[in-house]
Amino acid sequence: MPETHVYRRDALRGRLRDSEVDAILVTDLLNIRYLTGFTGSNAALLVHATDTADSEGRTVFCTDGRYETQAASQVPELERVIDRASARELAGRIESRIDDYRRVGFESHHVTVDGLDALAGAAPSAEMVRTPGLIERLRLVKDETEIEALRKACAAADRALAELIEHGGLRQGRTELEVARELESRMLDNGAEGPSFETIVATGANSAIPHHRPTDTRLAAGDFVKMDFGALVEGYHSDMTRTLVLGEPADWQREIYDLVAEAQAAGRAAVRPGADVREVDSAAREVITGAGYGEQFLHGLGHGVGLEIHEAPALSQRGEGTIEAGMAVTAEPGVYLPGRGGVRIEDTLVARADTPELLTLTTKELLVI
Amino acid sequence: MPETHVYRRDALRGRLRDSEVDAILVTDLLNIRYLTGFTGSNAALLVHATDTADSEGRTVFCTDGRYETQAASQVPELERVIDRASARELAGRIESRIDDYRRVGFESHHVTVDGLDALAGAAPSAEMVRTPGLIERLRLVKDETEIEALRKACAAADRALAELIEHGGLRQGRTELEVARELESRMLDNGAEGPSFETIVATGANSAIPHHRPTDTRLAAGDFVKMDFGALVEGYHSDMTRTLVLGEPADWQREIYDLVAEAQAAGRAAVRPGADVREVDSAAREVITGAGYGEQFLHGLGHGVGLEIHEAPALSQRGEGTIEAGMAVTAEPGVYLPGRGGVRIEDTLVARADTPELLTLTTKELLVI
Repeated sequence: MPETHVYRRDALRGRLRDSEVDAILVTDLLNIRYLTGFTGSNAALLVHATDTADSEGRTVFCTDGRYETQAASQVPELERVIDRASARELAGRIESRIDDYRRVGFESHHVTVDGLDALAGAAPSAEMVRTPGLIERLRLVKDETEIEALRKACAAADRALAELIEHGGLRQGRTELEVARELESRMLDNGAEGPSFETIVATGANSAIPHHRPTDTRLAAGDFVKMDFGALVEGYHSDMTRTLVLGEPADWQREIYDLVAEAQAAGRAAVRPGADVREVDSAAREVITGAGYGEQFLHGLGHGVGLEIHEAPALSQRGEGTIEAGMAVTAEPGVYLPGRGGVRIEDTLVARADTPELLTLTTKELLVI
Repeated sequence: MPETHVYRRDALRGRLRDSEVDAILVTDLLNIRYLTGFTGSNAALLVHATDTADSEGRTVFCTDGRYETQAASQVPELERVIDRASARELAGRIESRIDDYRRVGFESHHVTVDGLDALAGAAPSAEMVRTPGLIERLRLVKDETEIEALRKACAAADRALAELIEHGGLRQGRTELEVARELESRMLDNGAEGPSFETIVATGANSAIPHHRPTDTRLAAGDFVKMDFGALVEGYHSDMTRTLVLGEPADWQREIYDLVAEAQAAGRAAVRPGADVREVDSAAREVITGAGYGEQFLHGLGHGVGLEIHEAPALSQRGEGTIEAGMAVTAEPGVYLPGRGGVRIEDTLVARADTPELLTLTTKELLVI
């Protein structure tokens, strides 16, 4: 969808003019994917601040020979240069047309110290200006193309879990690793390009470890089984956690489950335009703290998701900023009782003008398998 | 194996003294893993040049609270500091004990422009000195612990392929994607932590595309089936390619297969201490060029493997340096006939004093399935 990318480049141009640079040399591959749709492993992109959607003559894309055909198909609307040292090649372009590119922004949070030397060496006449995070800030608010990709990614994870349960994949005697592999395999069957991060399956006492890696531990009667997993679709990451009980839940299990579910609903409801990210965290945290489990909720409420599994904004007491419509975030409170077990419930959702749109649709009722 | 890591840190100290720095602040996670065995996702390491294996009092490791237990188990022999901003925390340590750390090396090929600012801000009295690639150069020659990990990774891939064939996984009508997934699944069954890169399965005309990504294309009688894949074990990457024929090979298939096999054997034999990397490439390339297929061998002969799937040295006409005993490399010539099919044969091997040690042991006879 070239129009989508043209639109994003135009939004960037507004930021470039605010930063008083003539252009930006983009080297982060995710930012290049966001701005062009290119998915290869080597590229650089020079975006001119005063080009327009109709006339992008000073906006240039570079990749190496392996991707010549792919680039022609993914980035048909831009001038394409083929060179292995793509960023350096575009710096050479800057030097040779210095009147168009006197002040050039670069991604100082991404370019290495040695990398900047190489760029400055290839474009000695240009003034290289730090413009960290310019594109990441654009990426905070997702457009509908991005939300549709996230929706597909969430659906692949939802379906994988439903099939896992339906086919008896959660049964006593299976190992955490077996369950994790089946979940990942079923996500692939449902259109995922891959898991969006290393799948967590934690049974029994392991469920009390927030980021447990799956082991040979076997699922047993009475266990909490916590699964935190997601699918990657069109480069976008879904993120979901569900916790179930194998057999009839004990009272303590139902108690912390209901508590986490209540906190999670409060957190979701707080995801509204204008809300400070710390308030969103607090909305969930106060439910858990009020029940006396504040010390057992060890992490922030959630994080942004998109081209990265963890991106801004952080929904936590350390986070900064306010929610805007179109931001995609997770809400994932948890209560962890060391040695016994833990519960986390997590959705991916999108902030909308009023109620947020839920993208992960698996039930949050306590499932008893 | 703390001794292994102590030994590696001691080797690094020799390089630090050559570079005339008091210490190095290591921030690349693979280099930290190499020097300490730590496998978490956030860490920094300050190695003092004149500490010794018996007395490492000025060598300090830092990670965040999530990894406190893990770090105590993986890095028991070093002082450990717990802080989320690990590199900045160690820069603060440098500042507070400036007499010990006046000139401090940093990984200028890895630290970003903004990152260096943060370090210099936290250690304003220190002189930060660029020491790019110091640890990567140590990593060029593998020690026996590393070679054993590579051996296991190669064995997992060998077994996966053997099982795939034995269980009829390569049959007409299956898709490239199905074969790729079965290979990856069987590598996991054989002890891999994961595939070491995205598995390539390319059938028929697709086999002429050097880095084809698997699709829904179905295996058909008479096809070349090219599989390029590897396993990750203990952080080390194996890399292997085999090309087979479904059904009786045509004359042109046997001709290019035999040619590539001969070139590959010549390339392997050239992997000897003292050989220039360009000569190693040439040894294989001349066989192919001599048969008139030089234009169809589009890439270098091979690359180093270890904690990264592609690392130095590059065995190609653009590469630099000479082979040393203990280097682990691939030898992977190919001939690609667009629209018809292609052959690549690849092993992972280790340079030894005389004949290289082959780590991927699957036969290179033309397999007819």
